[in-house]
Amino acid sequence: MIRDFDFYFDFGSLASYLAHTQLPRICAQTGAQANMYPMLLGGVFQATGNASPMAVPAKGRYVFIDMKRFADAYGVPLVMNPHFPIITTPLMRAATALQAQSEAEFQRYMDAIYRAIWVEGLNMNDPSVVAEVFARAGFDPAKLLAMANDQATKDKLKAVTLHAVERGVFGAPTFFVGDQMYWGQDRIEQVIQALKSSV
Amino acid sequence: MIRDFDFYFDFGSLASYLAHTQLPRICAQTGAQANMYPMLLGGVFQATGNASPMAVPAKGRYVFIDMKRFADAYGVPLVMNPHFPIITTPLMRAATALQAQSEAEFQRYMDAIYRAIWVEGLNMNDPSVVAEVFARAGFDPAKLLAMANDQATKDKLKAVTLHAVERGVFGAPTFFVGDQMYWGQDRIEQVIQALKSSV
Repeated sequence: MIRDFDFYFDFGSLASYLAHTQLPRICAQTGAQANMYPMLLGGVFQATGNASPMAVPAKGRYVFIDMKRFADAYGVPLVMNPHFPIITTPLMRAATALQAQSEAEFQRYMDAIYRAIWVEGLNMNDPSVVAEVFARAGFDPAKLLAMANDQATKDKLKAVTLHAVERGVFGAPTFFVGDQMYWGQDRIEQVIQALKSSV
Repeated sequence: MIRDFDFYFDFGSLASYLAHTQLPRICAQTGAQANMYPMLLGGVFQATGNASPMAVPAKGRYVFIDMKRFADAYGVPLVMNPHFPIITTPLMRAATALQAQSEAEFQRYMDAIYRAIWVEGLNMNDPSVVAEVFARAGFDPAKLLAMANDQATKDKLKAVTLHAVERGVFGAPTFFVGDQMYWGQDRIEQVIQALKSSV
């Protein structure tokens, strides 16, 4: 009986954002809990030789249309971030630090960052914009960045990323139900089925 | 009211095979007809800068598992062809030639080629295996290859491929319902919905 699933994500991934909006639904429909794994998608790409679909222009144009169709079906807002790609290393480090400290703060932080990138289309490559978003979400920017830059935090994020690659991850978001891997926000129904059928 | 959809495919694409097995279901559920467009996926990749998911080893391993899950859900057989990638140029040319000649022969040919590659795992890069498969499906191999090598046939296939790229195609299979594009066998439910909602 599987009562939880693993969820690997990076804020810079549009599909991670869409999947994030559906995590409460997955949990509600299955009674399972999500184990959240912030990872560095750039590190995953480097390790596996994969690349963003946006690297192929025709694919990038389609992928956004495809994601918008899902966003509309989910009833959630979505804009293409004009500053894409966002270098998410400091953002993912802060997520890693907050996760170790407080579940509630971690959740509030994730919602704020996804919203800034994929709803408001903010330039989260700009440290002053990042500081504003941190502050608006109720975090002390200087304190949160210091936590993010702690060596133990950096090491933790790197270890999670490497472990993801070892498990077979090559993109984001990636789910695991037991040892079964599911890649993409468009595999959520399979994740739900896998959780239901394991009960 | 949209009563048909366009379907771009290449026999060398596992996802094209899976989608092919579901075309009768799409037509039955929507009352729409499929306009079949044999194209050269290699030409599409070259024109768009895209590549097979199999080019990234971790992705290739997952994609096969993912396709197998769909094959099981569809109730259709599937093997990973050990001779992948198959250079499908002569096979797609023969498809183009037969399509111009006879709907029934075109259908019988498609079923035979998909079966050879994705059910029997044959080495369709080997001309003698190709000749055997052609003969088994009731075609005269020499005659069919001559048709395939006709300049008008080559030009037609090239034109369809270029036109596909102009429409935004970057992979296979690709569906169009009106001007709306859907990429992948995993977007079949969206294609069905689009056809139903346009009636």
